[in-house]
Amino acid sequence: MAIPTVHDWTEHKLIGRIARRMQGLRSSSVRVGIGDDAAVLECPRGFLLLFASDMFVEGVHFHRRLLPAVWIGWKALAANLSDIAAMGGLPCWAVVSLGLPQTIPVPFVDGLYRGLKRCGRRFGVPIVGGDTVRSPQVVIDVAVVGKVRAEHLCLRTGARVGDVLCVTGRLGGSYPSGRHARFIPRLREAQQLLRRIPIHAMMDLSDGLASDLWQMSRASHRILRIDADRVPQSAGVKTLNQALTDGEDFELLFAVSSQDAARLPHRVGRCPITGIGSVVRSGVGVELRKADGRVHPLQPGGFRHF
Amino acid sequence: MAIPTVHDWTEHKLIGRIARRMQGLRSSSVRVGIGDDAAVLECPRGFLLLFASDMFVEGVHFHRRLLPAVWIGWKALAANLSDIAAMGGLPCWAVVSLGLPQTIPVPFVDGLYRGLKRCGRRFGVPIVGGDTVRSPQVVIDVAVVGKVRAEHLCLRTGARVGDVLCVTGRLGGSYPSGRHARFIPRLREAQQLLRRIPIHAMMDLSDGLASDLWQMSRASHRILRIDADRVPQSAGVKTLNQALTDGEDFELLFAVSSQDAARLPHRVGRCPITGIGSVVRSGVGVELRKADGRVHPLQPGGFRHF
Repeated sequence: MAIPTVHDWTEHKLIGRIARRMQGLRSSSVRVGIGDDAAVLECPRGFLLLFASDMFVEGVHFHRRLLPAVWIGWKALAANLSDIAAMGGLPCWAVVSLGLPQTIPVPFVDGLYRGLKRCGRRFGVPIVGGDTVRSPQVVIDVAVVGKVRAEHLCLRTGARVGDVLCVTGRLGGSYPSGRHARFIPRLREAQQLLRRIPIHAMMDLSDGLASDLWQMSRASHRILRIDADRVPQSAGVKTLNQALTDGEDFELLFAVSSQDAARLPHRVGRCPITGIGSVVRSGVGVELRKADGRVHPLQPGGFRHF
Repeated sequence: MAIPTVHDWTEHKLIGRIARRMQGLRSSSVRVGIGDDAAVLECPRGFLLLFASDMFVEGVHFHRRLLPAVWIGWKALAANLSDIAAMGGLPCWAVVSLGLPQTIPVPFVDGLYRGLKRCGRRFGVPIVGGDTVRSPQVVIDVAVVGKVRAEHLCLRTGARVGDVLCVTGRLGGSYPSGRHARFIPRLREAQQLLRRIPIHAMMDLSDGLASDLWQMSRASHRILRIDADRVPQSAGVKTLNQALTDGEDFELLFAVSSQDAARLPHRVGRCPITGIGSVVRSGVGVELRKADGRVHPLQPGGFRHF
């Protein structure tokens, strides 16, 4: 028997299948999940809400023949969870908008949702709704609502002169290694760090360290300086430039006071924490100190969106 | 001077422009809007949360040469607000994920956000974040979080035998008239109705009355019967079939007790309210009673998603 495509199915049938497959992902905060005009959810008390979305387009962000559907699904949700982690928060719920060509086999859709579910289960995020539409190529857009205690909230704007800049994990080579899709959003690591020390500024690394340092510099209006020989490189990365510009690391970049930096652990669980530089003065710019002690301006580089 | 395209701009520059243009749309509940990893929002107290998303793809849902950017933006947000209205709620915040070809002129993006802003301002919904990515055609996905008082919550599942079925507005012909994009989400109308009478079940009409009646029938497990000569037709609509299947009316379909139906106004503001039928018995199905009194089964018809 031929494998059915989404064209063979009505939207009603497709949504029914998705709803059944997402049933394992329950939460007591969900009054109504997939199937009505909107999901109905209980407000978390004593928290601020977080709200973000990330879109992934076939041919631009992934290739259907190179990346299994399950990892496309995982990545689409995990990228949002990385945003929530970077705010110091925890994710609550996600909605998924999915654009699909008519020729897409139903098992591909099953794979996508298997990845979404796997990620949602691991980090406690039920998929509570969304939209399915026709599209010339696969487009997946996930929106997540999370929560954060006011005292844990970390913005990009808070870096202070004298702060130490740190990163989680190792950088570079995320495409060849497959980590660009199979990464672990640093929710647990961020929470463990926040329980120990105050974080002045934090963001996740998606465009490449160099480009993301510029973002934090502009947001905080502080000049950031990193040391070339302290940037932790992933296994297989051969040049500093790769670690600075490869992108899609989905690690965290954060700024803490120098006193607190001394109290930072070298690892949180299995994730290394590395001091890579400092916040040097007011202004906008990023500097790289090479092994010989000389300081050079560092260009943004990294992922070009358009 | 040539008109710049998004390819000529960095993502940073584009987001900066969008953030500046959305500044007029403020709300005291927004602690941090566009520009960080996620928006930071104050939880509404005494409400349940609503969460929905709607995706629109160029060539499938609109044509860039036929529909001005401002109306693409309006429609993308208004469709979500229609979902929130149908739950008995009010919208709070929206995030916008936007896929754009590199060749898109910056003024087109300005137009989209002008439409989003116009709709957001009219209904009190700040755009607090989102994503901008490259895509072979324009894709816009809006996610909205809203709020609803528990006693106002209207699901699709609540239709009871003996209830009267009603619709807001007039149906059919939304494409030729342009109403498919320039429609008014029925937020105010739903709130005014809810202040007067309890609504047992409600949903918005997006796929066409016939198809959406089937959705409510399945959700409530009740057989719905409508009277052919009571379906309110838009100006210019020539056949009942158009009013039943054209789709994208973005009106509300709702069920109220027959006692309460007698207390319904004929209009809310300038929007007509029309009783079109009733909930006849348990089961799944939709029936059409013609002028001669004979009852026929009504097929879903309406918009085919895939």
